[in-house]
Amino acid sequence: MNPSPEAIALAANSIRVLTVDACSRAGIGHVGLPLGCAELGTVLFSELLRHDPSDPGWHDRDHFVLSAGHGSMLLYSLLHLSGYDLGLDDIREFRQLGSRTPGHPERETPGVETTSGPLGQGFGNAVGMAIAERVLAARFGSDLVDHRIWVLASDGDLMEGVASEAASLAGHLGLGRLVVLYDDNGITIDGPTGLSFTEHVPGRFEAYGWDVQVLEDPYDLAAVRETLARARESEDRPHLVCCRTQIGLGSPVVGTNKAHGFGMGREGAEQTRQSLGWSLPPFEVPPEVYDVFRPNAERGAGQRAEWEQRRDRALGDTRLAELWSAMYERALPPGLGALLPDFAGEKPMATRKASGVLLNRVAGAIPSLVGGSADLAESNLTSLEGEALIERGKFDGRVVYYGVREHAMAAIASGLALHGGVRPYVGTFLVFSDYMRPSLRLAALMGVPVTYVFTHDSIFVGEDGPTHQPVEQVAALRAIPGLELWRPADAREVVVAWRRALEREDGPVALALTRQAVPVLEADDVESRARRGGYVVEPERESGAPELVIAASGSEVAHAVAAARELNQSGRSVRAVSLPCLEVFLAQEPAYRESVLPAGTRRLVLEAGVEQGMAAILQPGDRFFGMTGFGQSAPWQALAEHFGFTAGNVEQLARELLP
Amino acid sequence: MNPSPEAIALAANSIRVLTVDACSRAGIGHVGLPLGCAELGTVLFSELLRHDPSDPGWHDRDHFVLSAGHGSMLLYSLLHLSGYDLGLDDIREFRQLGSRTPGHPERETPGVETTSGPLGQGFGNAVGMAIAERVLAARFGSDLVDHRIWVLASDGDLMEGVASEAASLAGHLGLGRLVVLYDDNGITIDGPTGLSFTEHVPGRFEAYGWDVQVLEDPYDLAAVRETLARARESEDRPHLVCCRTQIGLGSPVVGTNKAHGFGMGREGAEQTRQSLGWSLPPFEVPPEVYDVFRPNAERGAGQRAEWEQRRDRALGDTRLAELWSAMYERALPPGLGALLPDFAGEKPMATRKASGVLLNRVAGAIPSLVGGSADLAESNLTSLEGEALIERGKFDGRVVYYGVREHAMAAIASGLALHGGVRPYVGTFLVFSDYMRPSLRLAALMGVPVTYVFTHDSIFVGEDGPTHQPVEQVAALRAIPGLELWRPADAREVVVAWRRALEREDGPVALALTRQAVPVLEADDVESRARRGGYVVEPERESGAPELVIAASGSEVAHAVAAARELNQSGRSVRAVSLPCLEVFLAQEPAYRESVLPAGTRRLVLEAGVEQGMAAILQPGDRFFGMTGFGQSAPWQALAEHFGFTAGNVEQLARELLP
Repeated sequence: MNPSPEAIALAANSIRVLTVDACSRAGIGHVGLPLGCAELGTVLFSELLRHDPSDPGWHDRDHFVLSAGHGSMLLYSLLHLSGYDLGLDDIREFRQLGSRTPGHPERETPGVETTSGPLGQGFGNAVGMAIAERVLAARFGSDLVDHRIWVLASDGDLMEGVASEAASLAGHLGLGRLVVLYDDNGITIDGPTGLSFTEHVPGRFEAYGWDVQVLEDPYDLAAVRETLARARESEDRPHLVCCRTQIGLGSPVVGTNKAHGFGMGREGAEQTRQSLGWSLPPFEVPPEVYDVFRPNAERGAGQRAEWEQRRDRALGDTRLAELWSAMYERALPPGLGALLPDFAGEKPMATRKASGVLLNRVAGAIPSLVGGSADLAESNLTSLEGEALIERGKFDGRVVYYGVREHAMAAIASGLALHGGVRPYVGTFLVFSDYMRPSLRLAALMGVPVTYVFTHDSIFVGEDGPTHQPVEQVAALRAIPGLELWRPADAREVVVAWRRALEREDGPVALALTRQAVPVLEADDVESRARRGGYVVEPERESGAPELVIAASGSEVAHAVAAARELNQSGRSVRAVSLPCLEVFLAQEPAYRESVLPAGTRRLVLEAGVEQGMAAILQPGDRFFGMTGFGQSAPWQALAEHFGFTAGNVEQLARELLP
Repeated sequence: MNPSPEAIALAANSIRVLTVDACSRAGIGHVGLPLGCAELGTVLFSELLRHDPSDPGWHDRDHFVLSAGHGSMLLYSLLHLSGYDLGLDDIREFRQLGSRTPGHPERETPGVETTSGPLGQGFGNAVGMAIAERVLAARFGSDLVDHRIWVLASDGDLMEGVASEAASLAGHLGLGRLVVLYDDNGITIDGPTGLSFTEHVPGRFEAYGWDVQVLEDPYDLAAVRETLARARESEDRPHLVCCRTQIGLGSPVVGTNKAHGFGMGREGAEQTRQSLGWSLPPFEVPPEVYDVFRPNAERGAGQRAEWEQRRDRALGDTRLAELWSAMYERALPPGLGALLPDFAGEKPMATRKASGVLLNRVAGAIPSLVGGSADLAESNLTSLEGEALIERGKFDGRVVYYGVREHAMAAIASGLALHGGVRPYVGTFLVFSDYMRPSLRLAALMGVPVTYVFTHDSIFVGEDGPTHQPVEQVAALRAIPGLELWRPADAREVVVAWRRALEREDGPVALALTRQAVPVLEADDVESRARRGGYVVEPERESGAPELVIAASGSEVAHAVAAARELNQSGRSVRAVSLPCLEVFLAQEPAYRESVLPAGTRRLVLEAGVEQGMAAILQPGDRFFGMTGFGQSAPWQALAEHFGFTAGNVEQLARELLP
C-alpha cells in the first residue's frame, strides 16, 4: 500500500525544511530543486525504488542518479529518511570541511551512485549504468539482474551536449530500464528558460527514440504514480518524464531564478518554514516521516535477501560462479602474465597495434572487458575479433559502437565502471581527449577504473594535420590528479601499461599510442622495470657515471636509445631513460629516481609535445626538446625531419649538452 | 541562367577526379564526401553562393563552412575552380609540408572560413557567424549586411554534442540566414550509421525550431535548386537540408565505409577515373569547367563593387563611419587608458567583480563588444548594464544568453570572431573550461581574438566542492600553444589583463578570476609593469640581493607580499613576485626575466593549483606550494586554512627555504 497523500505531503515538507535548514546553516546552497521535487523524490524513494538502505552496494538495486547535483539536499534528505548511513549530524554539516554532505554529491557518501554537479555528466553515467545492467542481465539472467536506473535531470543537464549524445545512444540501444525525470521548472540560473532554451524537449527525445511523457502536475499523486508506472511497464525504449515542477515550491521565491541557489537567504528560509507551518527546531524530523520510507526499504531488504538466495543457488554452477567472480569481483585470470603477448624480438610495430593484439589475446580470459570506440574502431584497434556488438535487444556482445560521441562515451564508461560487473575501455584519437575532459576529470575524482585507449598520439599523426595532432594533450592529461597517463615507447611497454590498466582499481588509466610503427626495445626486463614509470633503457658506457642522460617517452625513446648508443660507441658515456608514465615515476622513492636520473647530471628530455609536464624533471642547464606550437599536415616522416625528431638530431643536441 | 545539367555533371566529375588524383598522390585522404557531394558543391558555388573569389575578405560575402573538414578536397576543388588564389599546384601538394592544402582546411588558405576537422566545431562556428551577421545587420542595415552562412555537415558533426548545443541555440534565436546541408550518406567510418546513429535527425532539428527539408535525390538538379531556393526564401528559422547522398559516388566503393577515407587506394582511384570516362592526365581540368563557376563569381564581383559604393556612401555619415571603424576595423577608443577603471587604493574586491566593473565602464566606448555567459551571468559578472539581450528577431542587443552550453558558446565565440565586426567575450566557471576545450584549442590554432572570462578560479570556490573547484585547469590552459592565460592578483592586474585581451589581435586570452575578495595591491605602476607577465610586486629589503623570491599568481600573491613584508621587517631580504601571465613572462628577454627571478636565488612558488605549469620556473632546491589533488566542499576560508594558503604558512615555508 502506498503512503497516504498526507504522509507524502509531510515527508515532502520535511525535505523542504531540511533543505532550508541546511542551507541556512551553511549560508549557501541550492534550494530550488529539492523544494520543487520533494514530492517526486518522496514517491520514488517510498514506493518505486528497489533498494536496501542497509546495503547500498547490493548489485541488483535500482540506481538513482541525481544528475542535477546542485540539488544535493534532495538526495541527502531522501537517503537520510530512507535509512542510509547518513544522519542528521551529517546533514547539519552540509558543505563543511570533511563532511559526507558536500555541496555536490560525491560517490563516497552511502547511497550516492555517482559524483555529480557538472551538468550532463550524471545523465551520461546513467546511460552507462543502464548498458551495464543489460549486459549483465544477458549473462546472468533476470533472476539475478533486473533493476532500473532512475535519473533526476535539470534543464541544464538537457542543454549540455554530453547529455544529448548520451540520449541519442540510449535511444539507439533501446535502454528501456532507464527512466529520466526531467525537472522541467522553466527556470535556469539566469532567469526563465525562455531566455535561452525554447526547443521542444519532448520532440527531441522522441526523435532520439525515447518514450516521452509529460507530467503537467507533478504534485498530483495519482498522476505521478500512473506516469511512473507506465515508464516502468514498457521496456523497449528509455523513458523521459517531463515534470512541470515549480522551482522552490513552499518558499517565498517560488517559480523564480532566485529560488535556484539560496537567494532567499536565512529570512526566506524562515518564511518557508512558516508557510509550511513548521514549528520543529532546525534539523528535527517528525518521527512519522521515517515511517513513510520504511516499508519500501524493508521491501527492498526482503528482495535483497531473496536475491542473495537466488544468487547463491545460481553460483552453485561453477561456470557461472567463475563468470560472476570475473565480472563482479573483477578477478583477473591467475595466469595473466602468461596470457600477455611477448613482443620481444618483434619487428617495428605501432603501439596501437600492440594494444589491439593484446586486447584480443586477453579478452577471452577477461569476460568483463567491454569496449568500443567513438567511430574509430579500425584506427584505435579496439575491436574484439569474434565478439558480438552490443545492440538494441542484444546485449550479450562486448563491443560498443559509440558513434562520434566522445564526451558521452567517456561519461558512459564511468557509468559502466560505477555500476560494476564490467571493465570498460574506450578509444578515440588522443587529440579528441579534449572532448572527453569533463568526464575524465570526474573519473579521476571518483577513482573509477576506466581505460582510455588514445591512439595517434603526437604530430606523427601526419597528413591529417594540426587539427588532429595532439601536442598539448599529454601534458593536459598529466595535469589531472589521479589520472595515469602512459605513453609507451614500444610494444613491450604497451604490455606493461595495459597490465597496469587492468590491475588498477582506484582510478583511470589513459594510454597514448602511436599511429606509426616504432622499433621494439631490445633492453632486458622491460616488462618488470617499466612498471616503475621510468627506467634505464640503454646504459651509459661507463657504468654509474653518465655524462648525460637522454630521457624520453613514447616514440622518442627509440631516438634516445640510438643517440646514446652512437655516443657511447664514440667514447662518451650517455644513458637513455624511458619514461612511459611520468606520474608513476615521480611517485617512486627518491633513491630509485636518483638511480635513474642522477641529480646534477645533465638531461636532454625528448617528447613530441609541449614542455609543460616534462618540466618537472628539468634542472638548470638541461634541455627539453619538443613542440612549441601546433603541428602541420605532412607525412609523418617529413614532420620528423622538419621538427627534428630524428636520431641524428638528438645525437647533435646531446653533443651540445655534453660536458 | 544556371549551368546546364551537362555542365554541372562535368564540373562535379572534375571535382571527383581532382579528389582521387590528390589522394592518390598523397597516398592518403578522404574521398567519400567530395565524391558524394560534388554536385551539391557545384550548384552552391556556381549558382547560390554570394562571393567574390578575388576578394575573399569581402565583409558581405556568403560564408561557406565545411564542418566535415575531412572532405577538404571538395572545398579546395571548389575554391580552385571558382577562381580563388589556390592553384592546381597547391592541390597537387595536398597534405604536404607547408602546403595551402592541408589534410583538414585551415583558415590561412584563401576562401577557407574556418579551420575545421574536429567534428561539430565548424557547425558551432557557423552559428556564431550567423549571429554576427544579424548583429551587424541590426546596426548597419540590410544594404550593407545581407549574407548567408552555408554549412556542409556530416553524420559525425550532428552526433557531436557541441553541434547539438549550437543547433538548439540557433533555433532559439531563429537564425534564418543559416543553411546547413547535411551529407546524409548513411555511412560512418566504422560502417553504416545504423550501427550507432538511428535517431530521427529531421525530428530532432524540428524540435530545435529549425526548418527541415529532405532532399531524397541530391543528384536531381531541379530538386536541389528548388530545395535550396526554399531554404533561402524563409528567414525566420535556420534551415537543415538532409541530403541523401551516396558516399564515394563514382568510385568502386560507393555507398560503403571504404569510401570514407582512401580505402580504395590508387587502384580504386584509377577505376574511378575510368568509370567517369576520364582520360585527361592527373591534375588537369577541362577548361570549360571553369566557365561553370565564372558567371557566379563575376556576379559576386559586381555585387561586391556595388556594395562598396553603398558602403562608401553610407560611411559619409560620420557616426556610422565611426561605428564601422570600431566594429569592422577593431579600432579601440583613443583614450582607452583613461576609460579603464583605476582600482588603486580600493578595498579588497573579487577579481571577477573588477572585471565586471571594467566591462561596464568600457562597453559604451567599444561598441563591438558582444558578450555573454553560459547561464552564469550573475556569477561571471559578464552582463552589460542597460544593454539589451540578443533575441529572436531582435539583434540590436549586445548580450547573449548562451544557456548551459559551454562548448557551443566557445565554438560560437570563435565564429563571431572569425566573421568579424564583433569582439566576443564569453564567461563560465573556470572548471568548466574543460567543456570548451576543443573549441579553445581551435581558437588558439586559428589565432582568433576571443576573451574567455573564467571566474571561480581555484579551490576558493569553496562550498560547491571539488566538482566545481579547478585545480588543474590553469595548467591545462597554459599547455595550449598560443592561448594566453592571465590569473590576475587583484583588481589592478585585472585591468592589465583585460587591456591585453582587448588589444590582442592574433589569439585568444583567458582570464582566471576569483570568486572571493582579494586585497588591492599597493605596489607602484602595476598597470605598466604587469603587462610583462611577471614583475617585482614587493622588493627585498636589501635592494638587488634577495635571499629568497616568493613568486605567485592570482589570490596567492597577497600571501607572498604579506610574507615578504613580515620577513623583511624581521631583518631578512625577501622579494615577492607576481606572475599574472606565465606565458608572457617566459617570452620576455632573458635579462628582464633575470631581473625578476635571479638565477640561483631560491624560489618559493605559490599557486592554488597543480605544480605543472609553474614547474617551468623551478630550480633544484626551490619549492612549489600548491595542490596535489582535488579540493573539498567547505567555506573558502576553511579551505585556505586546511590547505595552507595563509600568509602565516607562506611565511613559515619561506623561513624553511631561507639560507
